[in-house]
Amino acid sequence: MIKTIRWVDDAVVMIDQRVLPHREEYLTCRDYQDVVSAIKTMAIRGAPAVGIAAAMGIALGFSAVSVHTEKDQKTYFCRICDDLSKTRPTAVNLFWAIERMKRCFEKSLPSGVDSVKKALKEEAIKICREDIEANREMGRRGRDFIKDGASILTHCNAGALATGGYGTALGVIRAAREEGKNIHVFVDETRPVLQGARLTAWELKKENIPATLIVDNVAGSLMREGRIDLVIVGADRIAANGDTANKIGTYPLAVLAAENNVPFYVAAPTSTIDRGVRHGDDIPIEERSADEVLGVYGTKIAPDRTVVFNPAFDVTPNRYIKAIITETGVATPPFDESIDKLFHD
Amino acid sequence: MIKTIRWVDDAVVMIDQRVLPHREEYLTCRDYQDVVSAIKTMAIRGAPAVGIAAAMGIALGFSAVSVHTEKDQKTYFCRICDDLSKTRPTAVNLFWAIERMKRCFEKSLPSGVDSVKKALKEEAIKICREDIEANREMGRRGRDFIKDGASILTHCNAGALATGGYGTALGVIRAAREEGKNIHVFVDETRPVLQGARLTAWELKKENIPATLIVDNVAGSLMREGRIDLVIVGADRIAANGDTANKIGTYPLAVLAAENNVPFYVAAPTSTIDRGVRHGDDIPIEERSADEVLGVYGTKIAPDRTVVFNPAFDVTPNRYIKAIITETGVATPPFDESIDKLFHD
Repeated sequence: MIKTIRWVDDAVVMIDQRVLPHREEYLTCRDYQDVVSAIKTMAIRGAPAVGIAAAMGIALGFSAVSVHTEKDQKTYFCRICDDLSKTRPTAVNLFWAIERMKRCFEKSLPSGVDSVKKALKEEAIKICREDIEANREMGRRGRDFIKDGASILTHCNAGALATGGYGTALGVIRAAREEGKNIHVFVDETRPVLQGARLTAWELKKENIPATLIVDNVAGSLMREGRIDLVIVGADRIAANGDTANKIGTYPLAVLAAENNVPFYVAAPTSTIDRGVRHGDDIPIEERSADEVLGVYGTKIAPDRTVVFNPAFDVTPNRYIKAIITETGVATPPFDESIDKLFHD
Repeated sequence: MIKTIRWVDDAVVMIDQRVLPHREEYLTCRDYQDVVSAIKTMAIRGAPAVGIAAAMGIALGFSAVSVHTEKDQKTYFCRICDDLSKTRPTAVNLFWAIERMKRCFEKSLPSGVDSVKKALKEEAIKICREDIEANREMGRRGRDFIKDGASILTHCNAGALATGGYGTALGVIRAAREEGKNIHVFVDETRPVLQGARLTAWELKKENIPATLIVDNVAGSLMREGRIDLVIVGADRIAANGDTANKIGTYPLAVLAAENNVPFYVAAPTSTIDRGVRHGDDIPIEERSADEVLGVYGTKIAPDRTVVFNPAFDVTPNRYIKAIITETGVATPPFDESIDKLFHD
């Protein structure tokens, strides 16, 4: 069992994803600023995991409050939320988790500061637990899309490490495997941060799921040669119409899948759906440091002072997506309607 | 002027592309086995450059011959050709150059061993000179496809380093720039061997052509956002019907270009066209070592014993290609006819 993030005593403990797969080290955050830094530097990453980290960061931050008036407590709480909301812009789970913690704060505030501290901690732990449950439910709902003998392509890491545990896209793959299906996974290495090579390959090895690592450039020809039965990825933010922001390189896979009649699935909890955003092009796309592209683990791979464009995500228009697998149901085209339905059934 | 490969005194001198852009080092091959090794290890790479290296390798190898009978000379010559032909399987320029050297050998054999040595050396140098001329001619023929203000995407390195000099796809870009056009090049880093980040970025910097480096995953969203006016790449082998084998990741670009109405061009000398191969799927695709994927400059990026699939090339079906720019003409669909015409006009 991979322990992505946990509340341990008075700290938030997370596996440090920057040093995987070489070292299995745990980062102990004793202050919410440690959590802020862990999210920014991608010690923890993956939309649902980032949401959980933010929730735990808020609980951790507020546990240190020593101001006495409700007004000062509110100010202090808002500053924590504000700092966490500025860590990364694309994954909506971050903002979803902060909103949920705000509601918990408002609700418990009249009961006094100790109750608030207790309630925030419980809420953060609950968000983590619910996320794992949601992933298992996605697995149950999504596993039928994977036939026995299937060859599956995935991108980035949408596994236990990207979530409270079990994973979204990898959760569906795990569920198919747990049913006894014979499957094989092609893992995109996922430049620039190499979440596929470093994290997904590591997770699949731990689970003894047969996997082959490829550079991102290989996925297209595998599809053209009929060697991929389905593509399944996670998501960082899904618009109301089903347009999906996910790790850079997802959109090319979706186009290549459509071109080669390979079904393309997205697996994500409903917390990843942002109904306030109507179209994918309204999703803010984070640009990260040029250093991620100019080097690999500090080894330079390009001339000095090379200009770089490094967006961390891209948007896949809904027309390329066969189904969006969530914990409350599987949405299919037309997504405007089917996504709305996920929230009303 | 980049000195990719030259005949200097009694040796073949090439810039060592394995250590670029960090160090500008030259490799002196005094024996044809040095050339064999340089091609295999990609100290020299790029289809036309590999062809030139093979030709010079043959001349170098035969210059050391000390056997006396014509039969023994022939045997010796064939062994050299055979060793060179086994270096890399996909780029047809290698085999084209070997065939040309064989014809030169046969023709000069009756004049005695010293004449053969001289003729082979002259032929190899001529192949190099003709390649540069062909590239300049491609530049003249191809530059009109690049409008003033164009944003161009290229993949791998199809520049001076991939050829005798000037380049194929980069030659067309250089020619547009020499006309005074204001252009911008997006450079795919081109995993796994990073020819884009290491070599193309370096060449464009030397020429002061504005360029932005991206990971391969970014090209798709740039095209979707309308930020690319054309894609231009080189080729390793073009079938009689126009299907084109080129660096892995080319096929995805061609599909993404078609999907987003971006014209996709191939620039290559006629020596890259293999009329003996009718369809792209008959082109042998080299698979290279897993180490290229598992690490970057020796820095490991994946778990130990990860299974890897590492094809060095893919095939782009002709239907995605807008035009093939050669030194004798620009072929357009239907390619069966237009390619045939290149050899008969």
